[in-house]
Amino acid sequence: MKLVTCRANGTHLAGVLEGEEIAVCREGAEARTALRDLVANGGDVAAFAASATRRVPLAEVELTAPFPAPVRDIFCVGKNYYEHAREFHDSGFDSSGKEATPTAPIIFTKATTSVVGPGDTVKASLDPTSTVDYEGELGLVIGKRAFQVPAADAYDVVFGYVIINDVTSRELQRKHNQWVIGKGIDTFCPMGPWLVTADEVGDVTALELTTTVNGETRQSACVRDLIFDIPTLIETLSATMTLLPGDIIATGTPVGVGIGFSPPKYLAPGDVVKVAISKLGELTNPIG
Amino acid sequence: MKLVTCRANGTHLAGVLEGEEIAVCREGAEARTALRDLVANGGDVAAFAASATRRVPLAEVELTAPFPAPVRDIFCVGKNYYEHAREFHDSGFDSSGKEATPTAPIIFTKATTSVVGPGDTVKASLDPTSTVDYEGELGLVIGKRAFQVPAADAYDVVFGYVIINDVTSRELQRKHNQWVIGKGIDTFCPMGPWLVTADEVGDVTALELTTTVNGETRQSACVRDLIFDIPTLIETLSATMTLLPGDIIATGTPVGVGIGFSPPKYLAPGDVVKVAISKLGELTNPIG
Repeated sequence: MKLVTCRANGTHLAGVLEGEEIAVCREGAEARTALRDLVANGGDVAAFAASATRRVPLAEVELTAPFPAPVRDIFCVGKNYYEHAREFHDSGFDSSGKEATPTAPIIFTKATTSVVGPGDTVKASLDPTSTVDYEGELGLVIGKRAFQVPAADAYDVVFGYVIINDVTSRELQRKHNQWVIGKGIDTFCPMGPWLVTADEVGDVTALELTTTVNGETRQSACVRDLIFDIPTLIETLSATMTLLPGDIIATGTPVGVGIGFSPPKYLAPGDVVKVAISKLGELTNPIG
Repeated sequence: MKLVTCRANGTHLAGVLEGEEIAVCREGAEARTALRDLVANGGDVAAFAASATRRVPLAEVELTAPFPAPVRDIFCVGKNYYEHAREFHDSGFDSSGKEATPTAPIIFTKATTSVVGPGDTVKASLDPTSTVDYEGELGLVIGKRAFQVPAADAYDVVFGYVIINDVTSRELQRKHNQWVIGKGIDTFCPMGPWLVTADEVGDVTALELTTTVNGETRQSACVRDLIFDIPTLIETLSATMTLLPGDIIATGTPVGVGIGFSPPKYLAPGDVVKVAISKLGELTNPIG
């Protein structure tokens, strides 16, 4: 099932995408947190879908991030594809240690205020260093309160998946050493276009990710190539921290980011970045 | 004014500390988020105080963290006192770059699920590496939505202050490179004993911080000695990220942490850590 948060005629809506229409299940202020509340309250998507009161054409709405107001900051994983770990290490922007390939997951967070939806403008102008880079990523949404989950049971706590663009200021990432500032800039976390439930995805490791900038392919990878796979990430994070329903984990970006090129290909106003993942849709954002 | 969140006879309460009594302004489920809601809704503490319905003796309540459910993860500052920056750098646990003294604020976050209140047990047993360390810190609470606040206006957006113990697993901090895992462990963010409004504190740079372990003084410093002072921190964070009312910034810990000793003095079950800051009270937590 594809779960949607959107606006139509100035009203917030939440519902289920069915073909080219949205079955509207929540309206008004509560729609903004409807998916978060759905996940937090047990994730009964069948009951949620059954509560639909009307249908609106997808073409008539403006999609927002599925979680416009996430429960808390978004957990992210750094250097989690081999070739990207190498390109980032070689770029000179890597403040995460001497080794190209990490020996344990590198976890940081992006601020909730960085979240925007599909079509929203990424305000590259907020970065005074003009070193804005894209990072197409698979995001997963935790569906249950989760503590010390063994890798073998990890998928039991995954509610679904979403596309994330972990937009980054490379100079601020390096300058401040820990990555919250370089990663947490307002509008630097596009998310969407919808939240796809785990049952609809099936084997998540088979998903293919592609990032294009102005139509030029920059990243092309398969989730199977993660250094630390999804079960390992959930086991590691939940080993000491209780994960909450609605927590989001951005699993890392593959090779092909802007600083992997020489000279670096930074994003500039007027560019358009599209991250596509099979079964999850496309997340397109203009750069402003 | 000292604002309190607590429990009495199994009921959550929020109110104002007046001498040895608490004027109860909110009760039940809403008390848990009362201070967060107060700050988020404009911070009219006079109206909040005037809503008191009864008084209970301080001795009869169990204090909880002022924000048991923070708006989002807690922003923290690494290596923000000179001598501590040096001791941490020299300890071998510092994954934050080649230089002892940072050239820009190092910002990371602690998970909301790490927050506990005064008297609550810090579960050191959750750290499989048994390298648990204390970090007594001044925490500040943002009172207004804040974006691109110049240093000269920074105190205008500060609602108040609270004591924080930024408890850390040193091995996990080093192993995972970015610090969320080492810092975000459940129960590793004691906070309290109450939230003191800025007007009552006056010159925050004059506050003195002391941390003791089992009665032995380990840290003793003045807020004036911060490398990046409070206005600089607010200016830096808000330069690219919108800060929200209720956001918490832990400003960094001074020299005297456990790994500053040779051999390191790690915390172990049975220890008691007390962080005291003038005008803010004392935050005492047993280690379990």
